Amino acid sequence: MKFAVIGGDMRGVKLAEMLISDGHTLSAALLERAESRVFDSISPVDAIMGAEYIVLPLPAAQDDMLRTPLSGETISLAELAGLIAPGQRVLGGKLPAGFMRTLRERGIECYDYFEREELTVRNAAATAEGALGILLEELPVTLTAAPVLVIGFGRIGKLLALKLRALGADVTVSARSFADFAWIESLGLAAADTRRLEGTLGRYAAVVNTVPAAVLGEARLRELAPGCLCLDLASKPGGVDFPAAARLGVRALWALSLPGRTAPVTSGAAIKETIYNIISELECAN
Amino acid sequence: MKFAVIGGDMRGVKLAEMLISDGHTLSAALLERAESRVFDSISPVDAIMGAEYIVLPLPAAQDDMLRTPLSGETISLAELAGLIAPGQRVLGGKLPAGFMRTLRERGIECYDYFEREELTVRNAAATAEGALGILLEELPVTLTAAPVLVIGFGRIGKLLALKLRALGADVTVSARSFADFAWIESLGLAAADTRRLEGTLGRYAAVVNTVPAAVLGEARLRELAPGCLCLDLASKPGGVDFPAAARLGVRALWALSLPGRTAPVTSGAAIKETIYNIISELECAN
Amino acid sequence: MKFAVIGGDMRGVKLAEMLISDGHTLSAALLERAESRVFDSISPVDAIMGAEYIVLPLPAAQDDMLRTPLSGETISLAELAGLIAPGQRVLGGKLPAGFMRTLRERGIECYDYFEREELTVRNAAATAEGALGILLEELPVTLTAAPVLVIGFGRIGKLLALKLRALGADVTVSARSFADFAWIESLGLAAADTRRLEGTLGRYAAVVNTVPAAVLGEARLRELAPGCLCLDLASKPGGVDFPAAARLGVRALWALSLPGRTAPVTSGAAIKETIYNIISELECAN
Amino acid sequence: MKFAVIGGDMRGVKLAEMLISDGHTLSAALLERAESRVFDSISPVDAIMGAEYIVLPLPAAQDDMLRTPLSGETISLAELAGLIAPGQRVLGGKLPAGFMRTLRERGIECYDYFEREELTVRNAAATAEGALGILLEELPVTLTAAPVLVIGFGRIGKLLALKLRALGADVTVSARSFADFAWIESLGLAAADTRRLEGTLGRYAAVVNTVPAAVLGEARLRELAPGCLCLDLASKPGGVDFPAAARLGVRALWALSLPGRTAPVTSGAAIKETIYNIISELECAN
Repeated sequence: MKFAVIGGDMRGVKLAEMLISDGHTLSAALLERAESRVFDSISPVDAIMGAEYIVLPLPAAQDDMLRTPLSGETISLAELAGLIAPGQRVLGGKLPAGFMRTLRERGIECYDYFEREELTVRNAAATAEGALGILLEELPVTLTAAPVLVIGFGRIGKLLALKLRALGADVTVSARSFADFAWIESLGLAAADTRRLEGTLGRYAAVVNTVPAAVLGEARLRELAPGCLCLDLASKPGGVDFPAAARLGVRALWALSLPGRTAPVTSGAAIKETIYNIISELECAN
Repeated sequence: MKFAVIGGDMRGVKLAEMLISDGHTLSAALLERAESRVFDSISPVDAIMGAEYIVLPLPAAQDDMLRTPLSGETISLAELAGLIAPGQRVLGGKLPAGFMRTLRERGIECYDYFEREELTVRNAAATAEGALGILLEELPVTLTAAPVLVIGFGRIGKLLALKLRALGADVTVSARSFADFAWIESLGLAAADTRRLEGTLGRYAAVVNTVPAAVLGEARLRELAPGCLCLDLASKPGGVDFPAAARLGVRALWALSLPGRTAPVTSGAAIKETIYNIISELECAN
Repeated sequence: MKFAVIGGDMRGVKLAEMLISDGHTLSAALLERAESRVFDSISPVDAIMGAEYIVLPLPAAQDDMLRTPLSGETISLAELAGLIAPGQRVLGGKLPAGFMRTLRERGIECYDYFEREELTVRNAAATAEGALGILLEELPVTLTAAPVLVIGFGRIGKLLALKLRALGADVTVSARSFADFAWIESLGLAAADTRRLEGTLGRYAAVVNTVPAAVLGEARLRELAPGCLCLDLASKPGGVDFPAAARLGVRALWALSLPGRTAPVTSGAAIKETIYNIISELECAN
Repeated sequence: MKFAVIGGDMRGVKLAEMLISDGHTLSAALLERAESRVFDSISPVDAIMGAEYIVLPLPAAQDDMLRTPLSGETISLAELAGLIAPGQRVLGGKLPAGFMRTLRERGIECYDYFEREELTVRNAAATAEGALGILLEELPVTLTAAPVLVIGFGRIGKLLALKLRALGADVTVSARSFADFAWIESLGLAAADTRRLEGTLGRYAAVVNTVPAAVLGEARLRELAPGCLCLDLASKPGGVDFPAAARLGVRALWALSLPGRTAPVTSGAAIKETIYNIISELECAN
């Protein structure tokens, strides 16, 4: 198959290298700063021409531009769309709705690979490991026996809480349903109610938020023990009131895009596998 | 509140004792063989009369009869329904549809507590521990380093696989979707496809089925290594061809109702909590 | 090499079968009830004659007799010694000092394989799994979240405590030195002082003793919560005052020789490996 | 009690703060860069005068100087010794033999707290967490399912290997005795022989050395897979041939003094507890 990988971070680089090593024809653009020994980064026009599948990054866009952190050049989504021809297929992560509409109106199929559970899970696993690395690096105490609160029991919350417990931390997970409480306790973790954390927050060495909602506002931040680390893993707008944290002297970190930073090989491989799954299902459907 | 606990196994006994210790008024019937020191087992008629909530076992019925393994007496569901008056509420596990219809036609509200996720999860946790006990007891090798296949990645499969890995077993979990494969691998387990196990089954010291479908038929059983233990945890009709196993000399066990046998206190407490949750939601709705 | 396996439990049977499958010449005696399909159990005289290595069970003796639970016959150690000729080598577990002296006076080398750390560790691992199986079977609660006390931080205590924690139990280990307390806490477990358990014993669902000393006398047993299981894994004379337990209505179990009962294949393999190690060191020394 | 904390890294700062918060009289010197809000850093002469216990860092010395990374000043051990009076007691980590001799000749008792198992264990636990943080940060793959070799089964090797396995890594530990192989396997890890690693090294994503001996020379480094991370935790002279690694393009890191960097609070607390243990034993002896 013929793939074009356009833009993205080290995950895109590793993805491109793995596609080549799997025997596919590959062209790449807007990745020149990675200085890969395996492929050359050429112009978007040349890279896209003749490709069957155009692979965009995760996330694909920042504002209205393609995300190109490893390039000195930029390209708008509108301009990018103009380079793609009917019959080519576009695969990207968190594709903006307007961009997908534009493509489809022009007869170009497009697929958001981040909507696939198999990718979001692997992404969550890499995020959980990245968060663990931050906690190990930043906390002045060992994680063994450290009291840690994880807010939210979605994919990242589940995986992070299990890893923390495996390292001997004293882990509490907060959630909002009876079913989640039962899961949390059945996995050997302590459960709390995200809506009723007041009065309990002073005992933690670290609080990790995974919920994209305003769960750590000023009143709750005020309760944290001196030195408690507040780590936000939620995508924008995040869940921590950072200005309040700054005012109160709470150490708060917002860690975004961890998979690309801490595990680009694993994360690139996960994107590759997901793309293969999408393509094989398309072919079965035909 | 006034509860009547009618029939059931040791979970019912423990549940009744905990309801008393929580300060409720309790009557009980068809539990006389448990010889509880905390309550007397009286007749169903007397027990039901005046109760607000009638609690039936999990599962409530066997054929058309109430399940009463701790009693010398039996009662049909039809007869039982006749003892309950409009305004009383019935709570039971796996309530037969016909029985629920009969009750509702007579103006009696009824709720199947086994449809609540918080109970099925805790039930699965107790089942997983029971299965672990059987494997420890029956296998002639230690679980540490033993190759074990768990078929199915539902609640029981998840919890059992994690426990086996925690004990150092070499665990493979089979499932059927890309999303499940990603979850399995992200939890540090090996993944396999339930539809393509052929040719891989000879390496396991134990195979545990959790899927209520015919996944271990004669051809697959024939592949198992001599001495491999085949443990079926699926509810009826189960997933193992037991007559074929007997013919082939495969050691196969079908373990049903493990929570009531191996963890009646925890399981009784889980039923109690779920009943409280149901009641509190009913009261909120009013 | 030519081995004779004389007496013992299922570990001896599995050991004999594995020696054959490794290509050695094997004779066996006093194992007839196992009805092995791989070897015949012949008379001790015939089995011993011509063997280079005579393998005795673990433990080898009960009072002054060879341990022969799988035979209808018995033989005293004195009589057994008379059947062995100078130049033959004897390998056994927990060999009585008098028996070893007798053999050595007659020019027969003998080795206690249970004095080898590699065997006692594997034995401890099998014992820990057996204990886990008993706890899963006997406790009316799930181990997840159950408070459990392990007395002693020797091989069995270490391995059992880690397994219990891996299953989500709330584990305390008691020991007697600052170094052990540090190890216990560094492994993510709670530490207590075996000499100062008074006043803390009422919170456990199970207490497991691994210390061969009188650590659970009447006063301590009296503190246990109703229903608490008291499991003694210490070899004779054990650490629990069983008559006091009976008087107080404390449920107390004494589990001995677990490896032979719950993991004969793994345990037989461990004896085999240890015997090979001993022989290879003897040959290096020559 | 009156303590003087002289020199050291953040562990010394935290130790000093905890001694104050435990109610002791504290003076401190050569820690001014920490800018503690709890104590002032004064001159060594003033700090030492009147103290019962002089606490030196871990390690106490670098060449012949006191280790003072948080100070703009330096002091030689000889000069320091001259400030201490008979009757005062010195507690330090890895105290040089000559320094201890000098002190004892002058009637000053001194104790090396790093010779206490309870401290070296806790130090190893903090080192293992620090190493884990480095692996999570540096490896381009997730630790889940990553093949990792830990060389050495001492305190750090044991604790690191267990943590890696808990995170789902595929862990091999190399050691040199049958007893260690048995321990390694009984803990659910794969065992290898440190003397026979040749031909096996190409499969690892990371190799972590904990042995203070030349175990990773040029020939072995040459075997590592491209991208494999080589992490040396051994104290000087270390176990990796770093010049060879540089020549071969092997990514090699030497991480020393991790506890002070990644867990100063836990490590300071461990030193404090050990000092208390030493003092309580001295008082019992009197």
